[in-house]
Amino acid sequence: MPEDFPSNSIGIVTPQGHHFDQPLTLANGYTLDTYDIIYETYGTLNTARDNAVLICHALSGHHHAAGFHSKEDKRPGWWNHYIGPGKAIDTHRFFVVSLNNLGGCHGSTGPTSINPKTNKPWGSRFPTLRARDWVESQKRLADVLGIQQWAAIIGASLGGMQAMRWALEYPHKLRHCVSIAAALKLTAQNIAFNETARRAITSDPEFFDGDYLNHNTIPKHGLSIARMIGHITYLSDDGMGKKFGRELRSGSFQLGTDEPLEFEIESYLRYQGNVFSTVFDANTYILMTRALDYFDLAREYNDDPVAAFSHAQCQFLIFSFTSDWRFSPERSREIVNALLHAKKSVTYAEIESDYGHDAFLIPNERYHQAFRTYMQRIDISQSKKIDREDKHAH
Amino acid sequence: MPEDFPSNSIGIVTPQGHHFDQPLTLANGYTLDTYDIIYETYGTLNTARDNAVLICHALSGHHHAAGFHSKEDKRPGWWNHYIGPGKAIDTHRFFVVSLNNLGGCHGSTGPTSINPKTNKPWGSRFPTLRARDWVESQKRLADVLGIQQWAAIIGASLGGMQAMRWALEYPHKLRHCVSIAAALKLTAQNIAFNETARRAITSDPEFFDGDYLNHNTIPKHGLSIARMIGHITYLSDDGMGKKFGRELRSGSFQLGTDEPLEFEIESYLRYQGNVFSTVFDANTYILMTRALDYFDLAREYNDDPVAAFSHAQCQFLIFSFTSDWRFSPERSREIVNALLHAKKSVTYAEIESDYGHDAFLIPNERYHQAFRTYMQRIDISQSKKIDREDKHAH
Repeated sequence: MPEDFPSNSIGIVTPQGHHFDQPLTLANGYTLDTYDIIYETYGTLNTARDNAVLICHALSGHHHAAGFHSKEDKRPGWWNHYIGPGKAIDTHRFFVVSLNNLGGCHGSTGPTSINPKTNKPWGSRFPTLRARDWVESQKRLADVLGIQQWAAIIGASLGGMQAMRWALEYPHKLRHCVSIAAALKLTAQNIAFNETARRAITSDPEFFDGDYLNHNTIPKHGLSIARMIGHITYLSDDGMGKKFGRELRSGSFQLGTDEPLEFEIESYLRYQGNVFSTVFDANTYILMTRALDYFDLAREYNDDPVAAFSHAQCQFLIFSFTSDWRFSPERSREIVNALLHAKKSVTYAEIESDYGHDAFLIPNERYHQAFRTYMQRIDISQSKKIDREDKHAH
Repeated sequence: MPEDFPSNSIGIVTPQGHHFDQPLTLANGYTLDTYDIIYETYGTLNTARDNAVLICHALSGHHHAAGFHSKEDKRPGWWNHYIGPGKAIDTHRFFVVSLNNLGGCHGSTGPTSINPKTNKPWGSRFPTLRARDWVESQKRLADVLGIQQWAAIIGASLGGMQAMRWALEYPHKLRHCVSIAAALKLTAQNIAFNETARRAITSDPEFFDGDYLNHNTIPKHGLSIARMIGHITYLSDDGMGKKFGRELRSGSFQLGTDEPLEFEIESYLRYQGNVFSTVFDANTYILMTRALDYFDLAREYNDDPVAAFSHAQCQFLIFSFTSDWRFSPERSREIVNALLHAKKSVTYAEIESDYGHDAFLIPNERYHQAFRTYMQRIDISQSKKIDREDKHAH
């Protein structure tokens, strides 16, 4: 109960689900006849229904962004530092909706779900998704919840890309777009890391062409290596150095032993890989990394991000982190420059941090202040039209 | 024959081998009773025997650094751009010795060799090696060839680390040390990439705890993924972007197909991984990456690289490449700073290049000029003592 949790915690939250019967035609042409979405909400929807905020999760995220699932729950949701009473995304003001994306493995329909046409898990035959498919399914969830317009759509990394896609697909359905540590599209190096991770999974003999659930197994080793690769790209070289350095686990080299595990960083990565491989689905990992690779904001706008953003009607807040080399500040500045040229209202903050791409999750006073200040300025007294005049950068 | 090769090519070269009977006690305490070293030589040893240059190869390198093995040979040795008549390492002046390191898989004794005590391949039971073990075995090869002092010892990456180790272990046995794209020690991130690559190999079921040769198989998938990881770290983000961008193999997304291979970079990496996995030995890869991780120039000198370098007597040439993020220019500047504080003669060149860590292999006019100019200044008229006075940086 609340007295067990810090005063700025949401406390106990309960996931909800919705079954959608209306068929959803995906970007690849496939139609999903039915599907389920699992989500959580924090705070209260006001009578004007204009204080709703949508949280879009990143690659390995899910609907449980804040609060605790039980009194015994040791770890809160993944963005608990930034969502809660008095926090950047203030649940005293906002009604926060956080969902597990279609294709996920935490309760929404995805590769581990049963395909009603075959009565077997979808596995790797689950259709390929793109960010716009998530936008569409999130829009239908908004309809279910009676939300005509989001006060803000917020996401980091892959989530930040979805937030930008929302701004182009449904320009009048959001007043603010907060895109954190994202990019207009992935670089060849980003794709290369994703492809290597996928290869690690698909070449694991326990993968069985994605049909591992029907073989009562999981490609644990491959997924573990995929996660290790991911982890290296989430952290910065300096941050890793400060946290682990070249610390030896035993104090001296164990040169004679079989498969020695000499350095703390090795032990940490193996542990992270192993844990992840037991809680995440390999086909979902492949699907999510493919969606990242496919994302290319301006592809359908003649590769011109200014033309793409000219469709947007909302205001933008863009964050990047100095040591993030997965989606570096340079990538965020490309977003900002395109928004400025499209004459959109954009606020940009480049936050000093050693934590690399992971910085978006980690407490950071300056990040929190800039985020909170922006969110406090969002007008929620009424759902006004957003054909406003202040489209200048500030 | 020569008329088939460019005039600045060495032409056809033939590998040689030497069997060592004198036991070699390694840094980990194990003694190798006998071992073989394969090597090539280019140019002619002069009567003063003071024009010999030793080439130390990197992680996946070998003895075949220059020239061709036959008239039909389509590809010359790995450093053919920089070794040959009139090239940076000028075979008109120098007698170049290039060997395959102990533990390698190209002819020198290593994990694929037969352990005389068991009559089976060593496999993963081949002893763990450190850079100093290579220095020791290279010193014995020098004895065999009648070389009392090397005019220069030259290496890039892991090879550059060996060259520096030589300067500390046998300070009077070399007059110049050329260390390219190297570091005093690996960062946590470097180790993390190596560990992930090793994990990909050891978790391949075809690895059989390193005993795969006795099972008539190889851990092809694991080694392929290890190579993919390596390749990403050898190239720069910008270089990859310029070479591959987000080019689609088919011109449009193949969203519906099984295991789509959408981007050129994916295709390139898979190809590189597959080729490597058929020509390189997995246990050697593990051994070489471990040697990289262990390398810590100043560890036995109270972690003080200035104290370490105070033992050196040679002059140093240090190269780095602007886009190399595996062993960045910052790492090379640490070497240079330590050498300056130790009052050693050091020349440093930071070369502009898009090719990342791979730049040390690739034609680059400025790199070649700086390299050639330095090498031309090396005095080879007589083997003079090197207690010279010009220990200043220049």
